[in-house]
Formats: sequence, structure tokens, C-alpha cells
Amino acid sequence: MSKGRVLSIQSHVAFGYVGGKAAVFPLQCLGYDVDVVNTVNFSNHSGYGRFGGPRATAAELTSIFDIMDRNALLWPERLLTGYIPGGEALSAVLSLVRKLREKNPELIYLLDPVLGDSGKLYVSPDVIPIYRAMLPLSTIITPNWFEVEVLTDVKMTDLASLRQALRILHEEHHVPNVVISSIPLRRWLLEALPPAARPPAADLDGDFLLSIASSAADAARGARPSVVHARHVTCLPGYFSGVGDLFSALVVGHFHSAPPPPCAGASVLSYAVAQALSKTHAILSMTHEYAAALPEEDRLPTDEELDGVDPERKIRRMKGRELRLIQGQDVLRAHATEEMYVWNGFWDQ
Amino acid sequence: MSKGRVLSIQSHVAFGYVGGKAAVFPLQCLGYDVDVVNTVNFSNHSGYGRFGGPRATAAELTSIFDIMDRNALLWPERLLTGYIPGGEALSAVLSLVRKLREKNPELIYLLDPVLGDSGKLYVSPDVIPIYRAMLPLSTIITPNWFEVEVLTDVKMTDLASLRQALRILHEEHHVPNVVISSIPLRRWLLEALPPAARPPAADLDGDFLLSIASSAADAARGARPSVVHARHVTCLPGYFSGVGDLFSALVVGHFHSAPPPPCAGASVLSYAVAQALSKTHAILSMTHEYAAALPEEDRLPTDEELDGVDPERKIRRMKGRELRLIQGQDVLRAHATEEMYVWNGFWDQ
Repeated sequence: MSKGRVLSIQSHVAFGYVGGKAAVFPLQCLGYDVDVVNTVNFSNHSGYGRFGGPRATAAELTSIFDIMDRNALLWPERLLTGYIPGGEALSAVLSLVRKLREKNPELIYLLDPVLGDSGKLYVSPDVIPIYRAMLPLSTIITPNWFEVEVLTDVKMTDLASLRQALRILHEEHHVPNVVISSIPLRRWLLEALPPAARPPAADLDGDFLLSIASSAADAARGARPSVVHARHVTCLPGYFSGVGDLFSALVVGHFHSAPPPPCAGASVLSYAVAQALSKTHAILSMTHEYAAALPEEDRLPTDEELDGVDPERKIRRMKGRELRLIQGQDVLRAHATEEMYVWNGFWDQ
Repeated sequence: MSKGRVLSIQSHVAFGYVGGKAAVFPLQCLGYDVDVVNTVNFSNHSGYGRFGGPRATAAELTSIFDIMDRNALLWPERLLTGYIPGGEALSAVLSLVRKLREKNPELIYLLDPVLGDSGKLYVSPDVIPIYRAMLPLSTIITPNWFEVEVLTDVKMTDLASLRQALRILHEEHHVPNVVISSIPLRRWLLEALPPAARPPAADLDGDFLLSIASSAADAARGARPSVVHARHVTCLPGYFSGVGDLFSALVVGHFHSAPPPPCAGASVLSYAVAQALSKTHAILSMTHEYAAALPEEDRLPTDEELDGVDPERKIRRMKGRELRLIQGQDVLRAHATEEMYVWNGFWDQ
């Protein structure tokens, strides 16, 4: 069991599971040696309200990369980048990615362009052009729907605009593999889906999220402009932190250049995304069950007004909703059986 | 599978396995949620010759502990501290340990007093009195023979001085559980060992290392001043980094207040040390085999003169000798069957 090295560059928190703490352990369970560069060293994630700790400066990051390079320790087969605070640090990472891509054209680089969620940016806008500059260096990107909209300047409101956004990412930004990690399964999207890919009884907006995998890299399939797969997952109530970080780590860990076990219609990308979706959803379900079984004062629902008056309220809720990665490690190590659905005719007008 | 939380405070390296990188993954494999505070964020360990990255200041560490405390995130059942650079940072950790011990008298605190090895200090001497002040707060300590000598001011050259060193640690410094992680099995020590604990054909100094576990905590056994166990391991050629960090993590992870599976003469401590010894030695053997199978230029023997002329020589050797933790994770998760030997009559004059 030796799958090679992943270099992971993201935030670190002492307590809980976001950033590197959500990504590194799963990759280690899958058999990867993970080189871990921490962009920040915080006490806990920002959702607790109170958090802090040192951030690595661009100069510090560059110095670490430089020493590793001079020591011939910069030969990862895979690269994973997540949340990086601020434009200067992100530019330092961009320089590193350029160097790694030049040294190794076969590098599998998963770029998670962490910008925001649900219509809100949570980074400074100066990082957006830097992320755009990173896109052509990536092998896979895993934006959520909001990040796709920010990167492409396209509002996804119907199948035509979804197609347009994917086309921009593949053709203008030269991203071989685009994974929209989650997009609410609204009526337009539900109706556009092939019947087999629809949830059995979806009749309300917001009950389901859809993941979309679009691979333009799989030239052997002669697809133009890409092979598209989709799968829905049930939306669990409330907010869990670190889910995107876990998902991206599992995608890069399951993305193999050799074809996956034979299953009709699967691509290298859709196989990886299906594994990542199944495992992420299993961990989330375990976390949801754990949180639901806590004493009432530890699972108070989100209420911004009450949270503002009593910060401890939010802290208790956050603590109960940390991902159950350790308790779910057997799930992370096992092979998941679910697949994604081929979206035949996606590009047909 | 939920064994509670360990707070681990030690160094971090991006590449390779020392400090937290050697300790955290094994504890996670054993089922612990690990809270990880990084005292430094280095590129790689210092054995490579070239290394660097930011160190957390005492103020930064204190701030992280303080925020965690105010967020009610400072309730670990176990605490593990390893390499901490410099007196100021160590003093910040000492304050934290005092607070945790006061909040939770049941806290299991494993203190690895990282001072040096093989007769050489590799920390600044100002940390020695701080480590001495930490001793009475610990549950278990895991010094190597040199660190025992530095902490007690006793040279261990015969059974009487070994007894004296252990007595000082238990009685003057009030350490309930002392583990001498390794001491060369010289003739005086070999001859003092109970016959069952001797290696089958040990006739040369330096072929074997001995681990000694001395528990004065196990009051039910009515032992005065302590129950002593020992076990030898074969000494593998060359130097491997991070071994002590892995060993200490496994000791704290296997130290259970409930008695271990019944085996004649085992104590809670000797059970934990036996598990840690077996697993550490298995990982070391895998690492040694891996290193021995590398191309010749990656396994050049230690030669300070040649290393000085060609630093790449040392780097290649170090890289090939990083612990095979990921590849050996099944060993970490499994139950080891070996035990330690009871050293009956250890305290008899």
C-alpha cells in the first residue's frame, strides 16, 4: 500500500476538522504520504465566532517551498490546495504551482477555489483574478455553484447558463476536469436531468443537492466538449464546516490515471467523485446523527439574533457539528459502491 | 469507536514524520480525536541539514490556548507534549499544563522531555529546569537514557544508579509512571535482568536496546516503590528520526485506566509500553527494509566528512529513512501480542 505523495496546502486548526484537518487524515487512510503546509495555525474555525492564531506570510510560505525544493523534497504526484488567506499568500502558492507543473506535466493538481458559499464571498476580492490565473494549471477544480458563478461571471439559472459556465471553465480557462461540488436541485435542474439521475420523490426545492462532474480530459471517449455525470445527495439540515475540504481531498485521492473498476459509463473523474460523494455523505450522516443525539443545549438551531446575544450558544452548536472523521475512518478506507449517472445529451441544444 | 480527545503540542514538518507528523496519525488510527497545536512549522526535520519555517512565539501559543479555553474547547482527556523550542514557549506550555491538571485531575499527561540523545543536548539548557517543574504534573514520562541522566543528575552505570535515577523521578519529582524509552543493553544491565527478559544470544554491547517501565501508580499491587517491567528490542543500524515521537504517542494512546486484557504480571503501564514497543519496532523494521532496498546512492552510510563535502548525500539518506507510518497503518491499528517482562526483585538490595 503505497500510493505516492500528496502535497496539501491549506489552513490548520488545532481543534476540529476543516482545511488540512479535514483533508490530511482521509488521504493518509487511503495510503498517501501527505506533505502538509499550513497557511494558518488557528485555534478553531471561524464559525465559532472567536478564533485566532498566526498566519503564514507569503515570504514564510515561499521559504518553506524553497527549502523543500533545494532538499529535493518537492516531487509530489498530487497537489491539493484549499483555503489560502489573502492575495499575497495565494500568489506565493501560484508561483509554486507553476514550478511544480513545469517540473512534472503529469502532476494531478486539485484546485479548490475557496471563495465563498450561498451567495457570499468570504475571501478578499483580490484573490479572484489569482484563482483565475491558477485555473489553467489545474487538473481538477471543485468549486461550489457560487464559486462557479464568481469565476465565470455567469449566473446559473437554467441549463443553457450551466452549459455556458462549464464551457467557459473548460475552453477559456482550460480546466480538464470540473466538479461542481454542490448546487441546489431546483426545478430547472431537476427537469433537465436524465430521468435515471432524478431522486425518486423530489418535489421541493432545497431537499437535494446535485454534484456535477464534467470531464473534457477523457479524449478516448471522443466527447465534445466534455463527458458529464451527475448525482444527487440528500441535503442534511444545518451547516457543517469542512465538508468541501473533505470532499476535495477524497476526489484527488480517488482520481487514478488507470481506469476504475469496470462500470458502464464511468470516467476516471466520475469514479473519483462518486467515491468522494459517498464517503463525504456517510461522514456527514454520522455527524448529523451524533449532533442530533446531544443534549438540547448543545444543538440549539441557528438563530443569528440569539447567537448575537449569547456567543456560547453558537460555540456549543459548532462543537457538536465537527465532522466525525475519526469515528468514520472505516468508511474512508472502504470502497464505496455507488456511481454517478451519465448525463447523455447534456451538450445537445 | 470513540476514545476521546488527545491534545498534542509539538513540532510540525511539511515533509516527513517527526513531532506531530509522527504522533498524530497513529493516535487518529487508534480512534482518538487529536487537537494539534504546532510549536514550529518547518519544511523538514533538522537532520537534513537545511530546514526552516516559522516558530510559534510564546505569545502565539498562549493566545491559541486562551481562545480554545474561552471557547470551552480545552477539555482533552489526554495531553501529549514533545519537542518545544526554547524556554519561553515551554513556559507557556507549562502554564497550560497547570491549568489542565487543575481542571481535570484525571488528565493523562504524557510528557516527553525532549532534551537530547546519545550524550548530546539538542535544546538550550534553559529548558531543563522548566522540564523539571513539569515532572510532577505528568502521568507518564518517556525520556531516553540520556534525558534521565540530565533530569536526575545521575549517571546510569550500574543497577544501583539505575535504581537511584528511577527513585529520584518517582519520589523527588513525583512522576507516577517512568518509561525509559531506550537504554543500550550493556553487560551490567544484561546481567541484572531476570533471565527470562534477556535476549537469547546477546553477547555484545550495542546489539540491543532495553525499554524499562516503572510504575509507582499501581497502588493495588502494593509495590514499593514501583513495579518494574523491561523488554529488549533489536537495534537497527543507522539513525531514524521521529521514533521517540511515535513511541510516546503510542504509549499515551494505549494507556487505559481500565486493566488491559489479562496477562500475568502486566500493569496498565507495561501493557501500553508493550503495544508501543511492538508497533514502533514493526514500523522501524519496515522503514529499514525500505531503505535497504533503495538504489545505492540513496542509502549512503553516515559519514560526517563526506556529508560535509556533499550535503545532497545526507539529504538522500534522510529521505529514504523517513518512517513508513502510512504503509504500516494496519500495524498501528492492530493489537500487538508481545508483553513486557516483570522485573521481580528490581528494588531488592
